[in-house]
Amino acid sequence: MLDCEVTEIIEKLEFDKIRLDLPTYNATQISSQIGGAGNKVWVTFYRGVFDITDFVKRHPGGERIMNAAGSSVSPFWQFYQLHYRIDVLETLAKFRIGNLETPLDETPNMNYFDKEPPRNPTVITRTSTPFCGETPPALLPQNFYTPNDLFYVRNHLPVPTVDTSAYRLTIQGVGIPLSNFSLSLDDVKQKFAKIRMPVTLQCGGNRRSQMGEVKPTPGIGWTGGAIGNAVWGGASLRDVLTSAGFNWTNYTETFRQNKLHIQFEGLDCDPFGDCYGASVPLHFLLDATYTPLLVYEMNNASIPPDHGFPLRALFPGLIGARSVKWVSKILISEEESPSPWQRIDYKIFAPSVNEDNVNFNSASAIYDAPVNSYICSHKNGEVVERGMIRMKGYAFAGRGRGIVRVELSFDNGDNWQVVKLTRQDSNYSWTQWEIEVNVTSAMDVWVKAVDTGYNQQPEDLKHIWNYRGLVVNAYHKIKLNI
Amino acid sequence: MLDCEVTEIIEKLEFDKIRLDLPTYNATQISSQIGGAGNKVWVTFYRGVFDITDFVKRHPGGERIMNAAGSSVSPFWQFYQLHYRIDVLETLAKFRIGNLETPLDETPNMNYFDKEPPRNPTVITRTSTPFCGETPPALLPQNFYTPNDLFYVRNHLPVPTVDTSAYRLTIQGVGIPLSNFSLSLDDVKQKFAKIRMPVTLQCGGNRRSQMGEVKPTPGIGWTGGAIGNAVWGGASLRDVLTSAGFNWTNYTETFRQNKLHIQFEGLDCDPFGDCYGASVPLHFLLDATYTPLLVYEMNNASIPPDHGFPLRALFPGLIGARSVKWVSKILISEEESPSPWQRIDYKIFAPSVNEDNVNFNSASAIYDAPVNSYICSHKNGEVVERGMIRMKGYAFAGRGRGIVRVELSFDNGDNWQVVKLTRQDSNYSWTQWEIEVNVTSAMDVWVKAVDTGYNQQPEDLKHIWNYRGLVVNAYHKIKLNI
Repeated sequence: MLDCEVTEIIEKLEFDKIRLDLPTYNATQISSQIGGAGNKVWVTFYRGVFDITDFVKRHPGGERIMNAAGSSVSPFWQFYQLHYRIDVLETLAKFRIGNLETPLDETPNMNYFDKEPPRNPTVITRTSTPFCGETPPALLPQNFYTPNDLFYVRNHLPVPTVDTSAYRLTIQGVGIPLSNFSLSLDDVKQKFAKIRMPVTLQCGGNRRSQMGEVKPTPGIGWTGGAIGNAVWGGASLRDVLTSAGFNWTNYTETFRQNKLHIQFEGLDCDPFGDCYGASVPLHFLLDATYTPLLVYEMNNASIPPDHGFPLRALFPGLIGARSVKWVSKILISEEESPSPWQRIDYKIFAPSVNEDNVNFNSASAIYDAPVNSYICSHKNGEVVERGMIRMKGYAFAGRGRGIVRVELSFDNGDNWQVVKLTRQDSNYSWTQWEIEVNVTSAMDVWVKAVDTGYNQQPEDLKHIWNYRGLVVNAYHKIKLNI
Repeated sequence: MLDCEVTEIIEKLEFDKIRLDLPTYNATQISSQIGGAGNKVWVTFYRGVFDITDFVKRHPGGERIMNAAGSSVSPFWQFYQLHYRIDVLETLAKFRIGNLETPLDETPNMNYFDKEPPRNPTVITRTSTPFCGETPPALLPQNFYTPNDLFYVRNHLPVPTVDTSAYRLTIQGVGIPLSNFSLSLDDVKQKFAKIRMPVTLQCGGNRRSQMGEVKPTPGIGWTGGAIGNAVWGGASLRDVLTSAGFNWTNYTETFRQNKLHIQFEGLDCDPFGDCYGASVPLHFLLDATYTPLLVYEMNNASIPPDHGFPLRALFPGLIGARSVKWVSKILISEEESPSPWQRIDYKIFAPSVNEDNVNFNSASAIYDAPVNSYICSHKNGEVVERGMIRMKGYAFAGRGRGIVRVELSFDNGDNWQVVKLTRQDSNYSWTQWEIEVNVTSAMDVWVKAVDTGYNQQPEDLKHIWNYRGLVVNAYHKIKLNI
């Protein structure tokens, strides 16, 4: 069922009404626009007919919008429910050119998400279908290794139910001699040395809700809890590719030229046959000190369904979206993954780019993410008592650039105090920090971190605002009241 | 000869006078303080006796100050002439505890810099002994590859005169089987494939003069011209170490733990036996896509004396100080280079750290440097005519993080315009940019760049101020007048 707010907007925007100022079309007239004289893309929603020809290339879900071309968007929206949102509906309304003669049944009648795993209610639900859950930031400093049931979840599709006895990981593509090479889960566990590694994963959209202080951005409204740290256990991806016959020496020069990508596909799919996918430039693996994994353990337990059971790719230091969960296919290719989450979403544009002028091809996929820090122990506007308080938080930088320093300012940047780093591990793991502060009156608190490349965070969100609300890493600024 | 300003300060601070409020000591009393009851470090300068015991560990030149312990600093200052500076003299004056009974001859009478090579007078002399010369920033956009005679020079010591027929590069240390392995210059040129690579070098102190807008920092007052781009030609350092018998596979795990360093020593030495040196963690070389060189060519010519003739280490993406010139010794070691330019200078501290509270051991050496950008075509305060002007500049980020975007703002950051990138090459080479701007009134222009890790520059110099004035990468902000 659609919630009341959405139903109200549908009524307000007159999607459910015949508009007398517009012509009326039947289903055949609508579907025949594609390939017709004007080669237009028309879709319907309730009684509305919309010409979305010019919007197709700006669709954040990419070419998948063409599945609905010539008919109703509802079957797709009933699955990709993020479309039932004010800004999306308002955008659609702009393209209305007519009325649909015979309305279709628009009632959501399918539940694609009826096999989701149980979840800890402490995790804050940001979206339920697909499930995106955020760790309450205040809980993050309690553990250096985030407990599995508290670890943030960013799913893009329903969680697949995997029969491990039938599960195979197939590996194909450039440099793989066999066309039918595959491994069972036991193969992955038994044929390769198990490597345990502490690695922090962070969603590319962590802290997005703060971007809204400048100007709202679509996407999940994470605060600072779309990040977690765990000890992951699994096989070295390099070892697995070697076992599939990949000869690294032969490809050194090709990698240098950044010509090969390693594509991953998950078992999480939509009802229309598309599955989650992502890719990473294969030259990242030529650094012998960098060890991506195929993990089956998370904090010494079997990896939970929400985190990719039975097998997840794990790329330390890259945004979470590249660590494909429920991975079933690996393809070495001269192309990036065709997935819209690789080619369209998870891209960053200049502050001047918006929904109306975006060109997704003009930007590269994000892999790395910049230095970031966050105050977990206190919220903006929180009321505290006078006296000593203990502030805690985290800092993290991408691609193994460790944190050299975290600084707090209580006077809007005039002075910066270096805080105590309570725990650091490898450079792929976050840094936790804390400080005792004597509160005598209401105060502003700013935090920033410095990484081993001496990158500093930008001060002001306004200057890094981007249309998709990604890698939000301006100073975290909060106000404490008394 | 000391210049008039220094002579005046020496007089003003009464270094040349007996101070009647202080006791008088003879040479034996002064030299016997070390190892004496109090184990004090006393030095003299003209008629002054100074107890510098507490200053030794804060000396930016490190333990070398102990060469002067118990006697006059003048023989050392006559060589390391950066000491004849107001702030240094004022610091020394604070430590005065007495008068020297029989004054020494303090007249500078040695010229250690009489064999310097000829230089293009267009290069701006920032210090003459040692020579530090800056390319006028306005000339940088004229060439993608900076001409050798215009390329910035940052020497730390006199330029050595090298007899190439006698020259040997010795390679020793952990993992090198022979204790007397060495190569001639012809060996380096003939035994290894010549690799040509475009690489930008940037001094760690580039743009330091702007830091002075917040608070002055000691060091060479570079504007934005301590950077240049060249095609370098030479042997792969990895190949050279392999030829010396180094077995990479044996050391993979050691490297991962960052336990080995590759030290370099130059032929540029002081009269007291100390030479320039630096080191780099050897694990950087485990990335097969990263190729440090030993270069003997710069822009297809023999490398000039000011840039390291006959052989220079070249570490793409690291601050210039790590690319040791006139390299004669390579040592693989569990220790960093003992050089003060490795262990003391070229370190970055929080804005709250200054000369009085610095602890050099608390910070790591800089290798990488953050994203930076600069407006070369116009100076701050420049007067231009109304109408179209063409602005040009560069952007660069360390460790091969290429530039994805350069943006200009003409309204103090409210809006950002993406500028045209006129040329990019490898990610180790700078990016040049330009834009046509219609000037209708006096205007502020800000530039910032974004690298492939989506690091952005910090907006405000105040927040990144550091005592040594290093990696100055805040937005470059200029005002154009009409």
